[in-house]
Amino acid sequence: MAVAQLSVTLGDIVAALGGELRGDPHTLIRTIAPLDRAAPDAIAFLAQARLRSQLAATAAACVIVAPALADEAQARGAAIVTADPYRYFARLTQWWAARTRPAARVGVHPSAVVEEGALIGQSVYVGPGAVIESGTVIGDGAQIGAHSLIERGAHIGAGTRLAARVTVGFDCRIGARCILHSGVVLGADGFGFAPHAEGLEKIEQLGAVRIGDDVELGANTCVDRGALGDTVIEDGVKIDNLVQIGHNVHIGAHTAIAGCAGIAGSARIGRRCMIAGAACILGHLELADGVHVSVASVVTRSILKPGLYSGSFPIDENASWEKNAATLRQLHALRERLRALERLQSP
Amino acid sequence: MAVAQLSVTLGDIVAALGGELRGDPHTLIRTIAPLDRAAPDAIAFLAQARLRSQLAATAAACVIVAPALADEAQARGAAIVTADPYRYFARLTQWWAARTRPAARVGVHPSAVVEEGALIGQSVYVGPGAVIESGTVIGDGAQIGAHSLIERGAHIGAGTRLAARVTVGFDCRIGARCILHSGVVLGADGFGFAPHAEGLEKIEQLGAVRIGDDVELGANTCVDRGALGDTVIEDGVKIDNLVQIGHNVHIGAHTAIAGCAGIAGSARIGRRCMIAGAACILGHLELADGVHVSVASVVTRSILKPGLYSGSFPIDENASWEKNAATLRQLHALRERLRALERLQSP
Amino acid sequence: MAVAQLSVTLGDIVAALGGELRGDPHTLIRTIAPLDRAAPDAIAFLAQARLRSQLAATAAACVIVAPALADEAQARGAAIVTADPYRYFARLTQWWAARTRPAARVGVHPSAVVEEGALIGQSVYVGPGAVIESGTVIGDGAQIGAHSLIERGAHIGAGTRLAARVTVGFDCRIGARCILHSGVVLGADGFGFAPHAEGLEKIEQLGAVRIGDDVELGANTCVDRGALGDTVIEDGVKIDNLVQIGHNVHIGAHTAIAGCAGIAGSARIGRRCMIAGAACILGHLELADGVHVSVASVVTRSILKPGLYSGSFPIDENASWEKNAATLRQLHALRERLRALERLQSP
Repeated sequence: MAVAQLSVTLGDIVAALGGELRGDPHTLIRTIAPLDRAAPDAIAFLAQARLRSQLAATAAACVIVAPALADEAQARGAAIVTADPYRYFARLTQWWAARTRPAARVGVHPSAVVEEGALIGQSVYVGPGAVIESGTVIGDGAQIGAHSLIERGAHIGAGTRLAARVTVGFDCRIGARCILHSGVVLGADGFGFAPHAEGLEKIEQLGAVRIGDDVELGANTCVDRGALGDTVIEDGVKIDNLVQIGHNVHIGAHTAIAGCAGIAGSARIGRRCMIAGAACILGHLELADGVHVSVASVVTRSILKPGLYSGSFPIDENASWEKNAATLRQLHALRERLRALERLQSP
Repeated sequence: MAVAQLSVTLGDIVAALGGELRGDPHTLIRTIAPLDRAAPDAIAFLAQARLRSQLAATAAACVIVAPALADEAQARGAAIVTADPYRYFARLTQWWAARTRPAARVGVHPSAVVEEGALIGQSVYVGPGAVIESGTVIGDGAQIGAHSLIERGAHIGAGTRLAARVTVGFDCRIGARCILHSGVVLGADGFGFAPHAEGLEKIEQLGAVRIGDDVELGANTCVDRGALGDTVIEDGVKIDNLVQIGHNVHIGAHTAIAGCAGIAGSARIGRRCMIAGAACILGHLELADGVHVSVASVVTRSILKPGLYSGSFPIDENASWEKNAATLRQLHALRERLRALERLQSP
Repeated sequence: MAVAQLSVTLGDIVAALGGELRGDPHTLIRTIAPLDRAAPDAIAFLAQARLRSQLAATAAACVIVAPALADEAQARGAAIVTADPYRYFARLTQWWAARTRPAARVGVHPSAVVEEGALIGQSVYVGPGAVIESGTVIGDGAQIGAHSLIERGAHIGAGTRLAARVTVGFDCRIGARCILHSGVVLGADGFGFAPHAEGLEKIEQLGAVRIGDDVELGANTCVDRGALGDTVIEDGVKIDNLVQIGHNVHIGAHTAIAGCAGIAGSARIGRRCMIAGAACILGHLELADGVHVSVASVVTRSILKPGLYSGSFPIDENASWEKNAATLRQLHALRERLRALERLQSP
């Protein structure tokens, strides 16, 4: 079992996280598990209607449920009743992690390089080999992982955690309580060149990157610095691994972007958007608040109305795909032929 | 010529790797080359029927061939006859590399940081700046490249080689004889959030990553830790560069995944699958053993039968694509119009 | 405002970069800005016909324009007239950056590891923790960023700049004046395996990587070493972030490749090609000089004629997409039905 075990009671959990406990507060909980793989010492949750059938059969000591399912859950054992079981579960994982993981380290590792003129806050951790250049500001409680590099003029907000080898380019600013996973590169040059007869003339990227509070950036994700203005990521944005954010992009608060997606330069994404994995948004477009883009879809025009938008080729057995794909290359001609037939029918 | 030169005889090669030599065992070989670019001191191989026409014309001193082509190969010079010429070639490259590359280094570089409580095996190499935290186990003969980080509780199997700046997150386990290329991130947080009215609540990822034996992970590839259980990669899996493996994914033995592919959370991929480059597999799906997915295809449903599956838009001159793509957005309507015409024909 | 401010005159700019100044050479310029966001102390440029409407309204002190727009620009204030305003702007950003950014550092940081037998040129910078192995050659004025690793036998050309944690694998060669952004991995193994009954036999990659002059590689981009020959990137090529270049690829001079693209093994791309973001080029294909590939297109056959090629699924509201995508899986059958109807009409 992967989850580090604790020994807590349902009473402990409800005391910390709230919710209405139906059952014995002394019941011992040692792990968290999905409904269908829960042992008798596990707590599980039910948030999706499609999993309701697993409720009766689960061996979990306790299930976190919404009020509508309280009686059904209680019929089989203990239950915690709460308006939003999924969020309750999320907060339970946070509480669990805080109790099973070692406390954050504090102090500057002797192998780290902190240049003169860096302002380091209280209770900061600077890991082995990390480099903090002059003119930087590291907020209280920030954690700078091993081999991370904070270039001159960059600001790291209070409580922000950089995992190992994160690069924060010069003059970039990150808010409070952010998490940047290993390999993130913030503030590399945007991709800008003026094509001319002899080649491609580099446009120096004179802007920076500004990241709000409570932002999370996944492993090996890149956010380029702006050309003339800044690239901006607002509060609460969550970005997965291996995502590319081009120069001068603006991402509205609480938007989520899944792995392998790419946002081209100067695109403007609204608030609370959901961009699925491997989706691609062209440059200089605008997405309204609340736009959801399906996996691997390519956004080639602005989308000004919230809703779900899709555009991926349906997968098929290769032989069928080959025939359909070949026909697709004549689709316009087929339409013309259909039109011709229709004209014959209704002259 | 890029291949480092050796001076060996055909007799040396056959003594080491087997196969039936037809020709003079004293023939000198200095390099390995493709059939069509082979010099007279080169050994080449013929594994694909479509390259058979190059056999007569090659200048190679010796060609590795299957029994069916033995006579044809011998008619033009020396030959090594073996059931599987491509695998023979692969083993020859291994033999060549072992004789042309410097021996693996051993020892802990003085700039490395090895915390107390790390168990380091025999003949281990720990490169400059590498960090090995407490509670880790490093197997015999393992190589930990420069600036790599092995977090607390992680295990690295015997003979496993980490290139430079590989991150192995806490509690993750890697088997024996694996290769992890530069920039790999193992055990960053899976992308899990509970959306609610004010934003996105982080779900702490309480699982880890488990990697079997003989696995290879390409440069800058990411494998996230599981949410409640572990992310699992079985023995012999080969993954290329810049691939994203989401939390709780399970990849069966000897599956290969090419560059830029993405596997979303909780997908379960069978054994001996082949996932081509830039392909995308949605979360919570299942792929049977032996499923092959074509380049850039998006798998949106489980595939329970082995075979080749495809789904990419056929490329075309832009003007044609524009017309066909525009028509595609009316395809369902076209089908209705076709149906109406058919009804007129057969009332 | 993100652009670091200077205090220069139009006369200074024209003295350095040329062009015909129409207006007072003593006019003070403090920043560079887009036409529509320019303050009265800004210089702006007009290169795209579609932005011409912004000319009259801009508050910029001076606008860089082509001769055809000189009078129109001068009617509203100062102008610099030049044949290629976009290139002039690019060179202005370079001039600006040279005057606002600190001079390149020189010297070897005490925490760097430079092995005996490395040849280090004049005025070289080696950052904290960087590792330079034996048998390497570092050209004059090269900058090796923090935690970068130059493996044995690698060459770095004069004036080339490696940002933080760039890996240059053994025997790889980089020309002069290149820029490699953070996280680049050059010379990891190409993805080559011989499949057999028990698994996948590794093909050791015996080639290296050769990079010309004036090449730029984006953050976390990977270029694999060749199997038998080298992977080659010619002069002036510009590659964005998170791009995968497979083994034995050959990229012609002055080609640009945008973010998240992938080029599979042994593909041969011509000169002055433009590969848009997330595009994918299959292995062993050839692209002529001057081929442009649209965003997210999958190139599955050689393209021997210059021009623009496209192939992405058009995005749509999800409900429409679902209907059209479902119909697409019957497209070949629809064509047959259409053909049958046509036969009925013209017997």
